Amino acid sequence: MIDLVLIGAGTGHPDHLTLQGVRALQEADLVLIPRKGAGKEDLAHLRRAMLDRHRPGGAVAQIDLPVRDANLPYLEAVDRWHDAIAQVWAGAAAAALPQGGTVAMLVWGDPSLYDSSLRIAARLDWRARVIPGITAIQALCAAHAIPLNALGSEVRITTGRRLRDAGFPDDADRVVVMLDGTCAFATLPPQGLRIWWGAYLGMPEQLLEAGPLTEAGPRIEAARAAARAAHGWIMDCYLLSRDDAA
Amino acid sequence: MIDLVLIGAGTGHPDHLTLQGVRALQEADLVLIPRKGAGKEDLAHLRRAMLDRHRPGGAVAQIDLPVRDANLPYLEAVDRWHDAIAQVWAGAAAAALPQGGTVAMLVWGDPSLYDSSLRIAARLDWRARVIPGITAIQALCAAHAIPLNALGSEVRITTGRRLRDAGFPDDADRVVVMLDGTCAFATLPPQGLRIWWGAYLGMPEQLLEAGPLTEAGPRIEAARAAARAAHGWIMDCYLLSRDDAA
Ligand SMILES: C[S@@+](CC[C@H](N)C(=O)[O-])C[C@H]1O[C@@H](n2cnc3c(N)ncnc32)[C@H](O)[C@@H]1O
Ligand SMILES: C[S@@+](CC[C@H](N)C(=O)[O-])C[C@H]1O[C@@H](n2cnc3c(N)ncnc32)[C@H](O)[C@@H]1O
Repeated sequence: MIDLVLIGAGTGHPDHLTLQGVRALQEADLVLIPRKGAGKEDLAHLRRAMLDRHRPGGAVAQIDLPVRDANLPYLEAVDRWHDAIAQVWAGAAAAALPQGGTVAMLVWGDPSLYDSSLRIAARLDWRARVIPGITAIQALCAAHAIPLNALGSEVRITTGRRLRDAGFPDDADRVVVMLDGTCAFATLPPQGLRIWWGAYLGMPEQLLEAGPLTEAGPRIEAARAAARAAHGWIMDCYLLSRDDAA
Repeated sequence: MIDLVLIGAGTGHPDHLTLQGVRALQEADLVLIPRKGAGKEDLAHLRRAMLDRHRPGGAVAQIDLPVRDANLPYLEAVDRWHDAIAQVWAGAAAAALPQGGTVAMLVWGDPSLYDSSLRIAARLDWRARVIPGITAIQALCAAHAIPLNALGSEVRITTGRRLRDAGFPDDADRVVVMLDGTCAFATLPPQGLRIWWGAYLGMPEQLLEAGPLTEAGPRIEAARAAARAAHGWIMDCYLLSRDDAA
């Protein structure tokens, strides 16, 4: 029997890890880490640095993650992909821990937020536990030293795709946008909106921009394109607010 | 000149603190802690335990927080109250650090989420930095080992008051409810909704309930009333989801 511990690793700063996360890393019988994260070499590096620091010499299994079938319809492709990942996890755990034990994995940010690890784990007859971690949303607000919510008010968390499709919701004050590959904010009528943007939050490369969307929007598009070209990859997110909800 | 560091302390587990938070506690010239938190004795205890562990013998100033004037209109009362708290912070810092320095405070959960510390700090000519912390939302999802969002979908964060006033939004799949003193979920038509509820998340007293709102709702109302009577205080939050968004 395998106990799985999904450890929220934070969004790129090695010291985003919580004391609970450190302990879970140390106590696990085995830690699984992806050999490489789909071109995100820096992230694999971060995971390894956490292991070297908190679990020197401890048992670690590197796994090769399958790739998603681009020829299938999206939801079906994701479903099969998750099945295949679950098989890789199960194989690595069975090989290293034939008698069972505790397997830990470092999950980017927090395992609850736009992450598939829990859905993959649900395919196995493992018991899954979660150690919460700092999300990109907390890292964004911390970097700008701003509150997420207006006083007593509501916040939405959405994706770039949804913002692009649906616009800024009429009945929202504040919207956090994640998973946006294409500056969906640039498709909005910018008047009356403010933006706080962050890329590589928590990392040495961290970039921040903020201001009225009319002015900051074009600056962000340029900064994003330049950073992406320079590093070969980018992770960014942002908070949009109506002016009168600041 | 004072540098303020607001450290997200997590929601009740001493090991929710991040390594970044530990370091900021250790490096501060002074830590301010409220002498007592409006009847929440257990929380003051947690802050002190963090200081004893990570900053033994370090400079700490206990502050007496003013109370909100219940006779003023709400927003005006909050505004004056924040002014008064800012004065208390400034007085304590000036007394202990006449030459200036770094003042740290442990903020419940994360400083960005339904917390006034940043708004209070904005009243002073201090430079404020934020160290992100685990929010009650992460603690809730971790305790239940569930994702916050449905795949690729949106999430709202709201308050008990707003849920009570506006109901479950027509166009939402998932809503997190915080700051609910009165079981606002019980005012919703429960059909087609699921709930994941948690109280005292991260603490030894932690309580969890989950299920279809038709069944779990009454259980939660009873558990909440009993726990509140037993402990004298309660902090709880929950995630509501449409059945078909699970
Ligand atoms: C697949 S989601 C994972 C989110 C993660 N589980 C969390 O808790 O933040 C990836 C998205 O998170 C955001 N993100 C994650 N890390 C980030 C970082 N260091 N800086 C900026 N955005 C980040 C980006 O919007 C990115 O598209
Ligand atoms: C004033 S807000 C502060 C939130 C905090 N800054 C955070 O990041 O979670 C207080 C609300 O957070 C939620 N909360 C905080 N700690 C909690 C805990 N340990 N268990 C359950 N709910 C909690 C409750 O909804 C409570 O009414």
